[in-house]
Amino acid sequence: MVLDKIKQPNDVKNLTEEELQALPQEIRTFLIEHLSKTGGHLASNLGTVELTIALHLLLDFPQDKLIWDVGHQAYTHKILTGRASEFEHLRQYGGLSGFPKREESECDSFDTGHSSTSLSAALGYCIARDLADEHYKVAAVIGDGALTGGLAYEALNNASRLQKSNLLIILNDNEMSISKNVGGMSVNLERLRTSSKYVGLKNDVLSSLESWPNGENIIRKIRSTKNGIKQLMVPNMVFEDLGVMYLGPVDGHNIKAMLETFKMAVRINGPVLVHVITKKGNGYEPAERHPSRFHGTDIFEIETGLPKRSNNPGYTDVFSTVMRKMGDRNPEVVAITAAMAEGAGLKRFRNMFPEKFFDVGIAEEHAVTFAAGLALGGRTPVFAVYSSFLQRAYDQILEDVCLQNLHVVFAIDRAGLVGSDGSTHQGVFDVSFLTSMPNMTVMAPKNKWELSDMMKFAVSNHDGPIAIRYPRGEAYCGLKEQRAPIQLGRAEEIKDGSKVMLLAFGSMVKKAEEVEQLLQSHGIDAGICNARFAKPFDKEYLEAIKDRYDLIVTMEENVYTGGFGQQVQAYLNDIDYKGKVLKIAIPDEFVQHGSVTLLFKELRMDAESITERILEVL
Amino acid sequence: MVLDKIKQPNDVKNLTEEELQALPQEIRTFLIEHLSKTGGHLASNLGTVELTIALHLLLDFPQDKLIWDVGHQAYTHKILTGRASEFEHLRQYGGLSGFPKREESECDSFDTGHSSTSLSAALGYCIARDLADEHYKVAAVIGDGALTGGLAYEALNNASRLQKSNLLIILNDNEMSISKNVGGMSVNLERLRTSSKYVGLKNDVLSSLESWPNGENIIRKIRSTKNGIKQLMVPNMVFEDLGVMYLGPVDGHNIKAMLETFKMAVRINGPVLVHVITKKGNGYEPAERHPSRFHGTDIFEIETGLPKRSNNPGYTDVFSTVMRKMGDRNPEVVAITAAMAEGAGLKRFRNMFPEKFFDVGIAEEHAVTFAAGLALGGRTPVFAVYSSFLQRAYDQILEDVCLQNLHVVFAIDRAGLVGSDGSTHQGVFDVSFLTSMPNMTVMAPKNKWELSDMMKFAVSNHDGPIAIRYPRGEAYCGLKEQRAPIQLGRAEEIKDGSKVMLLAFGSMVKKAEEVEQLLQSHGIDAGICNARFAKPFDKEYLEAIKDRYDLIVTMEENVYTGGFGQQVQAYLNDIDYKGKVLKIAIPDEFVQHGSVTLLFKELRMDAESITERILEVL
Repeated sequence: MVLDKIKQPNDVKNLTEEELQALPQEIRTFLIEHLSKTGGHLASNLGTVELTIALHLLLDFPQDKLIWDVGHQAYTHKILTGRASEFEHLRQYGGLSGFPKREESECDSFDTGHSSTSLSAALGYCIARDLADEHYKVAAVIGDGALTGGLAYEALNNASRLQKSNLLIILNDNEMSISKNVGGMSVNLERLRTSSKYVGLKNDVLSSLESWPNGENIIRKIRSTKNGIKQLMVPNMVFEDLGVMYLGPVDGHNIKAMLETFKMAVRINGPVLVHVITKKGNGYEPAERHPSRFHGTDIFEIETGLPKRSNNPGYTDVFSTVMRKMGDRNPEVVAITAAMAEGAGLKRFRNMFPEKFFDVGIAEEHAVTFAAGLALGGRTPVFAVYSSFLQRAYDQILEDVCLQNLHVVFAIDRAGLVGSDGSTHQGVFDVSFLTSMPNMTVMAPKNKWELSDMMKFAVSNHDGPIAIRYPRGEAYCGLKEQRAPIQLGRAEEIKDGSKVMLLAFGSMVKKAEEVEQLLQSHGIDAGICNARFAKPFDKEYLEAIKDRYDLIVTMEENVYTGGFGQQVQAYLNDIDYKGKVLKIAIPDEFVQHGSVTLLFKELRMDAESITERILEVL
Repeated sequence: MVLDKIKQPNDVKNLTEEELQALPQEIRTFLIEHLSKTGGHLASNLGTVELTIALHLLLDFPQDKLIWDVGHQAYTHKILTGRASEFEHLRQYGGLSGFPKREESECDSFDTGHSSTSLSAALGYCIARDLADEHYKVAAVIGDGALTGGLAYEALNNASRLQKSNLLIILNDNEMSISKNVGGMSVNLERLRTSSKYVGLKNDVLSSLESWPNGENIIRKIRSTKNGIKQLMVPNMVFEDLGVMYLGPVDGHNIKAMLETFKMAVRINGPVLVHVITKKGNGYEPAERHPSRFHGTDIFEIETGLPKRSNNPGYTDVFSTVMRKMGDRNPEVVAITAAMAEGAGLKRFRNMFPEKFFDVGIAEEHAVTFAAGLALGGRTPVFAVYSSFLQRAYDQILEDVCLQNLHVVFAIDRAGLVGSDGSTHQGVFDVSFLTSMPNMTVMAPKNKWELSDMMKFAVSNHDGPIAIRYPRGEAYCGLKEQRAPIQLGRAEEIKDGSKVMLLAFGSMVKKAEEVEQLLQSHGIDAGICNARFAKPFDKEYLEAIKDRYDLIVTMEENVYTGGFGQQVQAYLNDIDYKGKVLKIAIPDEFVQHGSVTLLFKELRMDAESITERILEVL
């Protein structure tokens, strides 16, 4: 095995020509075998095997800096920097992260997870390097999908201004981000891919010109206009227009071709973009055929590519069904996604109502302000988005939606702990940041029926900004009988109790039931209330119960600071509640990757730990 | 006066040719006279007089939608829609807003204030219009500065995908946003401005080709490549590369030329961008010479352009001085601004240390991730930014800085009520959103010396993300003697008291002194504590005082929800404090424009009202 020779960074440089040729296939087999057992981002990593090898032949680690945009395509980089043996525990608690992590290896230069950050970070490194008169190389690998994010454009714009700084930008173009790519930039890239035709044209024009009487005159004139020649060479140069030198396209599965181009690129003064064409899922047929399904995959059977676990319907599926029905019944409803049609459950809506479905690319800011415009034009936009990605549109939610009090529905998926994707993807801040915004309403359902009821409430019975948050994974099917109509700002008491009241928000209602059972075994009869609304939370209910309980336990899958519990506690204190408040919430720290069950235990937020904590307080 | 004939929307269409010619000068005189008395955004509005007139000749109000990006250039639009008489009270409490406001006029289609939102909102309108089979026009006016924001690029990208929707984009290019413009896009625009030379070239090439033996062949070939001809016409077409049709450039002070081009543009199917060149401050010599100073101006003398009020040194000036000194003493310090070098007090630093100063354009997201890269490269970046604009980088602060626990200093100016700029500019959310981020430290100084001490602490004695917030306007010079060294998470007690403790954060310490005086006159001896840190707030101090006071009054210039007070109250409740907590904070609503003094009164946050509220509780 060639792979066995790679024990540490830069070992790849010592391989023979033949070994280098064998390496990609070995890595692919390694990835497929391991990921079939652990799950992970398969398609994107199969696409970047040769690209990573070429970069490792070019760069010296750890002094050179390599930044992976989003970071879910860095598995080969992890292998080549000596972390192959840790793939058994990929994305598991205490194991290897699925994303670059500086604490994991000094060859990881920037922690990523969210899209479009690599160029900005790389530029920062470049400037710091130049100011310190150091000379390491800085490279960023960014996908065509990540390039739809405005942050990447802001960085290109600034890179161009800072011409002096050498920066190698690799555009990893696989013609799709997670879903199929969209937008003007992707059309532009498509043109570049086929640009040989243009290059042919250029040659024809130039040679013709040379042979004609006043041809030289014209050529001189062309050359005298700063960019005339470049324009004739590659006619679609949005990058060069922005001041970044463009090279390519290069075959992203040809190590030699890439390495040659990279070497040329690093000799050029200033920022250079090398356009590399790769294929998502390359070398594994099921992943080539279904790159979206194999973007982030659960464990699967290698022969067929079929998932080994059949997951029960999740909240995303429930949402998907509701949206499809709404498309029929509420003609004003339109749906928006930021490159997450499948993940966020809008595939069926898209297929049935293509004219009312909008995939804006990885552009959450735009998604929100676009929704504001749609709302003003009389539509009811539903923006389906992961909690941690909604963070990218904070200002637009506040200024463009809340300030104008517009009826935009935020369907917030992956709200709470997400598990194996880890710290960048935990959706544990939305309750804090959304509740601090005037005019915003924030809800969370206890079970699958309530998600459906809340969606209907949000679309049909409400006006103004409204958010519904629900967690990743299986939808809770308990408490089916508890289905009081949704009323703005009203909680739903599920069970009366004495002494202890469990006031749970959303996904924590299920945990409250478990806690209630455990407390029964200690002779404590706890009440359970489904809070439903974090904003406005039910003040009347708190007034009503404040003299009846010694302990009110708030429960939420959100950070402690500025969250539901703290707000409820402050209010209870305002109204002279004499008992105690115990806040079950995510502590003030970033939560790593691992199974959600383990993480809850670790955070003392599983039913057993919560029960213990309650008993401690009592 | 021609202006007298304009009483309501669309009146401008009934003017004679002569009247139309006289109108711009009348409007300029009107603006200069009024703004010399009220203050306001002069330079940008002088630049858009003819542009607005041309748009009002083209569009029918209110059915057509016109969206002003940022919105500080919409004064002429306000005049032409019948609001001239209200300019006396421009930006004053209860008076005309300095920005478009839907509640002010049905001719204002989108509330703006923050940059780069117009294209997204306009596109939303377009799609809603098409879905409803309506036929109004939608136009957005965006400056070349706003075009440096990634959100605008995301919208262009999406507009190009939604080719069917007619959308008129006016690029108002004055070669500067607030400060001088930066980045690749501005270089690209510069090329476009001078493109006549290219057009000449194209004609030469084509006519030459025609006359040569195989010329027709080549022309056919050029035409067959989708964009060949366009490429030969305007060689720098980042917009066309992105799929948006480009027309221009047009003289933005020539109504006729603009109107003709606009009429042509609205006949084209799909999104069209018309490039209009205007001059900031046009027609008023002092503003032409100093467009930055006249961007947002206080009252001034018309003859000289000199300010009538000499403002005392503000926190911005103090920060400016500290930064200059740091540039000398701390070689690792670098400074970043998002197009606010002057407003945020970095002008002197820029002049003295140009190689360590970075203006990234209106691109707050990039500024933060760029800072993260700089920190990793060994620098200590200070990002000077207004509180309300820092909102635009929420995700980057959380994911790129806090998650990696990087030493980035956020110098947050305009934190608190800003006054006449109104709801979009009030900096009253930062304490809530920053404190909910793990690893973040949040401070606020009580007076000018403390800002200086805190900056030094942040740069030299701290590692990790750290924010210092200070308000707009005059720096407090009281409490000079109170200058205990800054220690992480430690408050500074200024005065002991009995029964009542005023626990004030930042700017509210000054108010606490006034309240203390007023309480004395009611026979109440209140203590004063300068909280210094909102995160981590001083738990030891709270432990120490919890049994000594019946009432703890938290005071902050930040929203109630998730703010300092709520967090302190929850903690006090956790540690069994038996007294009451009164939280003085911005209520859960958007705060309108007006003088800061009036706003504080209105919010019951001035010293008198706070005193009353304390007496009510006691």
